[in-house]
Amino acid sequence: MSRINAHYCDLPGSYLFAEIAHRVQEHAAANPHKRIIRLGIGDVTAPLPPAVISALHKAVAEQATPEGFRGYGPEQGYAFLREAIVTDVYQGMNIDPDAVFVGDGTKEDLGNFQELFDLGCRVAITDPVYPVYADSNVMAGRAGPPDALGRFAGILYLPCTAENGFLPDLPGERPDIIYLCYPNNPTGAVLTRGQLARWVAYAREHDCLIFFDAAYEAYITEADIPRSIYEIEGAADVAVEFRSYSKTAGFTGLRCGFVVIPPGVRGRGPGSEPIPLRDLWLRRQTTKYNGCPYIIQRAAEATHTAAGKRETRAIIAGYRENARRIRDGFQALGLTVSGGTNAPYIWVKLPSGMGSWDFFDLLLNRFGIVGTPGAGFGPSGEGHFRLTGFGTAADTGEAMERLRGFTL
Amino acid sequence: MSRINAHYCDLPGSYLFAEIAHRVQEHAAANPHKRIIRLGIGDVTAPLPPAVISALHKAVAEQATPEGFRGYGPEQGYAFLREAIVTDVYQGMNIDPDAVFVGDGTKEDLGNFQELFDLGCRVAITDPVYPVYADSNVMAGRAGPPDALGRFAGILYLPCTAENGFLPDLPGERPDIIYLCYPNNPTGAVLTRGQLARWVAYAREHDCLIFFDAAYEAYITEADIPRSIYEIEGAADVAVEFRSYSKTAGFTGLRCGFVVIPPGVRGRGPGSEPIPLRDLWLRRQTTKYNGCPYIIQRAAEATHTAAGKRETRAIIAGYRENARRIRDGFQALGLTVSGGTNAPYIWVKLPSGMGSWDFFDLLLNRFGIVGTPGAGFGPSGEGHFRLTGFGTAADTGEAMERLRGFTL
Repeated sequence: MSRINAHYCDLPGSYLFAEIAHRVQEHAAANPHKRIIRLGIGDVTAPLPPAVISALHKAVAEQATPEGFRGYGPEQGYAFLREAIVTDVYQGMNIDPDAVFVGDGTKEDLGNFQELFDLGCRVAITDPVYPVYADSNVMAGRAGPPDALGRFAGILYLPCTAENGFLPDLPGERPDIIYLCYPNNPTGAVLTRGQLARWVAYAREHDCLIFFDAAYEAYITEADIPRSIYEIEGAADVAVEFRSYSKTAGFTGLRCGFVVIPPGVRGRGPGSEPIPLRDLWLRRQTTKYNGCPYIIQRAAEATHTAAGKRETRAIIAGYRENARRIRDGFQALGLTVSGGTNAPYIWVKLPSGMGSWDFFDLLLNRFGIVGTPGAGFGPSGEGHFRLTGFGTAADTGEAMERLRGFTL
Repeated sequence: MSRINAHYCDLPGSYLFAEIAHRVQEHAAANPHKRIIRLGIGDVTAPLPPAVISALHKAVAEQATPEGFRGYGPEQGYAFLREAIVTDVYQGMNIDPDAVFVGDGTKEDLGNFQELFDLGCRVAITDPVYPVYADSNVMAGRAGPPDALGRFAGILYLPCTAENGFLPDLPGERPDIIYLCYPNNPTGAVLTRGQLARWVAYAREHDCLIFFDAAYEAYITEADIPRSIYEIEGAADVAVEFRSYSKTAGFTGLRCGFVVIPPGVRGRGPGSEPIPLRDLWLRRQTTKYNGCPYIIQRAAEATHTAAGKRETRAIIAGYRENARRIRDGFQALGLTVSGGTNAPYIWVKLPSGMGSWDFFDLLLNRFGIVGTPGAGFGPSGEGHFRLTGFGTAADTGEAMERLRGFTL
């Protein structure tokens, strides 16, 4: 019998959100008349904006004609979208369309990007963290086996706790790659311009790379919070940025995102020669990927038009208002809450000694509300609970009603 | 500087079709008034059939309403599509919808599937072969460095030459994994039921796995050629099947395919325990993939309706007729030609001593026709040239006109 990749056996039993779906399904089967409100997984609920819908219809209609039909597209993405991105998002940051790679979303792009590196590279992740950063490295064999707490020897963990305001300290030892996500999932924390500049300086000084996940930049409301790492001088030599249309324009079910790899971002080849990561990713994508569907790239392009931007801003404003209500609602229960101001995520500190899966079960069984247990994001997430503003306004309001007066 | 995955440096300079695109682009720039006819890359040209177009419009319209909007779908694919596949494609083969995983296409699925296996596993591929089978294993580090001919020590090559009718012999030593593609890309060869049964028997006897790429089954015209490996008894214990909507329904730019992993197909875990590959692939997909877009799964579903099947059959009949014309056209030049009967690919034997990249350049420069050099598919492909029936009828006819009377 052929040997499997044994590193899969080092992963936690199931992917976090698959485990949540499983528990919710069981509960729903046992309580068929109870209406469950989902504020757990970061999935959006507002329909696609009109500009996106009409771009999709138009692109579909093209595919019905011999002249308009498009088969295989460029693996890197169509120039029309890469140019729209640069013009709309990276104005003044000296980013060229050649540095932009369109993909199917940040989960896919971040999950695959680690393939470009040696298995001996040491990665640093914040704790708690979006599970894909760690899991994709574990599956590749870069992390080694887990200890009793579920921590991997090959990963450098950067704790984010109430004590440090959920902002990690600079690493005490040099990693090769640092995953950063700001606005943060799951804590909702943000880095100011000065704080992010310290990370860029650290990466330059220690010759390491930053993978910057900016999937939630559209939720920033306060001044002095950078939306892109390329707002920081020197970042274009050390940072790769990951962006998504999922949480900005409701593309969770359409699937589109992009990666920015400036030409100065390089790794060390087998003969110690510097190799642009851009070239390696192009090779990876041309070999194992056939491009994001044309019709979906047209939909993404529409989000960069004036109408598209106005419409997506309105949707985001709705999710922000949900986040505010959740924040206020949990604070009214006497709990300490962070996030929710520059991020769609609300991070709730549970009463001392309460496990986050226990709170998950309590909220589900007693109130029919689904959130995400902090422990699912890593050991430092224990004792916390994540809620999201991505529900409908009505559901969010009803959830807060259900919880009113509840004492833990 | 962080060390890159050095195995990338063992790959040939660029992905085959990227190299072709590059040469064609250069030629077109130098000859702006010459109309180039592309019969090289296996990209389709017929517009999407009406049943697919209307399914797309309907699904897009749903996304504009709060009730119809769909965000994250199941990573494995929606049940409606997996059930349609089983009913339409696997009737009587004892395949359950749970064994079907919808993905973005065979290039992606086959490129990623090798991740489930130990780096020590030995893979067997036919030579010539679709480059992704080999390249994805090289990138993972399973193949070792290449020799002067571009062959990798960790890969077992099964030569397919005119001498064996382009059908490989059973391996002399046991591989862990055997990639088979029938109808074959690039040679157009097919296996009869009896011939495929010998491969299944071999895999069962030697406890190895078959990855069966059935992307071109729709082109089979002759009797006794199996369309699915599961038509062979015992295959459901040893074979994973890869299918694509690209060459059947014109989805090269829409991106959809599926993998079938029956529950009896297993690998050996670190404690020698058998582990169903289905569970491993589910874990891989839930961790690094977020599902094929809902609207595209609805489009794929439409190809399994009566109207969708009728319409796609008509498109395929057109491509088959193109293949016949190319076959006849090259035979009229005095060349030996195979394929093109049960496959969209025509495999031309070049005059002795002529290199396949030389013939590529000759055909491009003299006639403005793009084909694919056999050497791009592996050492045994040298001396051969691949053409495809996927052009328009008009282009295919014009290409044959241009070549008429040409003597090598």
